Amino acid sequence: MVVLEIGLQEIEDLVIGATILGAGGGGDPYISKLLAKKAIEKYGKVKLIQPYQVPDDALVIPTNVMGATTILQEKILSGEEAYEALRYLESYLGEKTFATMPTEVGGLNSVTPFIVASKAGIPVVDCDGMGRALPEHQMTSFHVYGINAAPMVINNEKNEHILIQIKDNYRATDISRSLLAQMGGIGNMAGYTMTGEQMKETAISGTISFAIRLGSSIRKAIENKANVFAKIQEATNSSIYSKAIQLFLGKIIDVDRRLNESYLRGRVVIKGYKEFEGQECTIHFQNENLVAYRNNEKIAMVPDIISYLDAETGRPLTIEQIKYGYRIMVIGIPTPEIMRTNEAIKVWGPRYFGYDFDYEPIEHLHKQILIKLANQKLIEKEVKRNVHSVSG
Amino acid sequence: MVVLEIGLQEIEDLVIGATILGAGGGGDPYISKLLAKKAIEKYGKVKLIQPYQVPDDALVIPTNVMGATTILQEKILSGEEAYEALRYLESYLGEKTFATMPTEVGGLNSVTPFIVASKAGIPVVDCDGMGRALPEHQMTSFHVYGINAAPMVINNEKNEHILIQIKDNYRATDISRSLLAQMGGIGNMAGYTMTGEQMKETAISGTISFAIRLGSSIRKAIENKANVFAKIQEATNSSIYSKAIQLFLGKIIDVDRRLNESYLRGRVVIKGYKEFEGQECTIHFQNENLVAYRNNEKIAMVPDIISYLDAETGRPLTIEQIKYGYRIMVIGIPTPEIMRTNEAIKVWGPRYFGYDFDYEPIEHLHKQILIKLANQKLIEKEVKRNVHSVSG
Repeated sequence: MVVLEIGLQEIEDLVIGATILGAGGGGDPYISKLLAKKAIEKYGKVKLIQPYQVPDDALVIPTNVMGATTILQEKILSGEEAYEALRYLESYLGEKTFATMPTEVGGLNSVTPFIVASKAGIPVVDCDGMGRALPEHQMTSFHVYGINAAPMVINNEKNEHILIQIKDNYRATDISRSLLAQMGGIGNMAGYTMTGEQMKETAISGTISFAIRLGSSIRKAIENKANVFAKIQEATNSSIYSKAIQLFLGKIIDVDRRLNESYLRGRVVIKGYKEFEGQECTIHFQNENLVAYRNNEKIAMVPDIISYLDAETGRPLTIEQIKYGYRIMVIGIPTPEIMRTNEAIKVWGPRYFGYDFDYEPIEHLHKQILIKLANQKLIEKEVKRNVHSVSG
Repeated sequence: MVVLEIGLQEIEDLVIGATILGAGGGGDPYISKLLAKKAIEKYGKVKLIQPYQVPDDALVIPTNVMGATTILQEKILSGEEAYEALRYLESYLGEKTFATMPTEVGGLNSVTPFIVASKAGIPVVDCDGMGRALPEHQMTSFHVYGINAAPMVINNEKNEHILIQIKDNYRATDISRSLLAQMGGIGNMAGYTMTGEQMKETAISGTISFAIRLGSSIRKAIENKANVFAKIQEATNSSIYSKAIQLFLGKIIDVDRRLNESYLRGRVVIKGYKEFEGQECTIHFQNENLVAYRNNEKIAMVPDIISYLDAETGRPLTIEQIKYGYRIMVIGIPTPEIMRTNEAIKVWGPRYFGYDFDYEPIEHLHKQILIKLANQKLIEKEVKRNVHSVSG
């Protein structure tokens, strides 16, 4: 495979794709995008290499921004803080990293490693640890498959660095969250240090180039006023994700957003129109969309991706962007199989978030609904036939 | 000067002296004492060297325990956690330390570096950064005279290590305090890394050997049922401290202790007897005794040392040890001049603790009281003389 050169256009497209894969969250990548473009203009394009191109014994250190991403919009960051975190961790390890990579392909963290890589002159590996965005720090395939988050470095824009060396990833997350509160609510992180071999075993492959491809086809569809959702179905169908599903179409009649413990929690209520006339859809979120209900029936749940499109233009929207009155399409993307193993579901399935039900893949839920609808139609037909035969 | 070899007896004596210099706080050194004796039995005696014996370019790293020391009594520590913190910091710095030293000569932290030094096979320098015990982490002469606390390592008994790299010592303290809450309330620390030259410029010299000398003479006086307070006066009079002052003698009629934000706050009220018959003494504390009042008049304040002796035996007592009904002597020890500069008083004077008055040295307060008493006696005499001449 040819090495992709990531320039300004690729960053634009990545951000569009990452908004879909952000599942409503992951943080508005707008500022990160500007910073990444500035970095690329200043330091040059970034090579996006494939996992197999990383030697087994080479060092790979993911980089990301963490914390309440709503704060990001109010903070002035140089964009180079995550680079400092990486350098700090390298100096602690006494070794230079071969490449960096995102921990999550969804939202602004899809872009962060490109700022770091551009400045450091290293490549980004085409993979991530979430295949989407997720609200907690230990929710990575790295964690699921045995990589320690620590040693990890957290820093902020005041050049305050903290190195955490705690084996238990849940403990490390708790500690880092309490540190963030003290450090201004948002920080940069370098952690989950691994070898090339470990990266190949634990990361979700090809997600970055997929996000760019997805973003590119969405952008072109919007420009050409083509069917954006059809393009998303096309792109997902030829990827490690499965074909996207339309979950709902309607007008937002309620958005309840609360920021506490550095999470944006709440729900969105949508009143259906067109083929969803008379129906209602409710979506629960914690930074990202977690569970979607249609008329109180579950239609999609974490880790499957629940995302919003502007119903008019097809433009992807985050939870932070939607408002009362907006007309939106809710779509679902089935996540790759590596994210659906028993180990993985324990870490990011609905029970972890406090729901009292097991994970059910979105395709199954969708099929059940289709069957139910078909049955209903059959029954209606039967009833009509009976009515007909009685009256006839 | 001959190098002192610190063995079991010296640790015993150090702990007695450190209880006096702990100003009622610093944490009960009982457990630390046991751990230090165990370490010395296992790894051997520790050399206590003088500051001038440390080369100017050698590395010196103080070690200590931090947090709510009341918790220490409920936790099982191996005593070697602070050693791990030191090793961790060394490996970060890429340099071995020449010696360790206490941050505070008061309370249990007078002993901690001896556990570390015994295991590491390095000497302890005869100095500290507080000349007593103080409740906040940045309250060190190192801080006052320009040494950064960071890079500092905090760890706990679960082998969780955190390295803090924050230039501002107040910020570093805030962060470390919030971390401690997450790490079990108490942790070990290695920080305030300095060169031999910086140590000579900023540390308070000779405090450890003084504490041992003080403790030794107290112990002997108790054994021989001699006057303990007289021995304390003798020892302080020939040291960088000044001669101890008896502040009060009485029975405790109230102890109000509250543990919040990892501080033990409150006050002790004592009803006088003998020469203090009819008088009342109130002492405010925050981990350590801060201000003493006699009949609502200030008689001593931080950073001067306010300590308790058991009135019967002369045994030094901490705030944690005293109880309603105890008969105690309150003593004051004037701190060395290096602790009374304008820079120093800003860091640990009464205003820092929220009192609305300036620091006044205990000797001045005492002199004023003596003058007042003398004046009162003169007046009484005069009155008597007048009465006499009128009636005569």
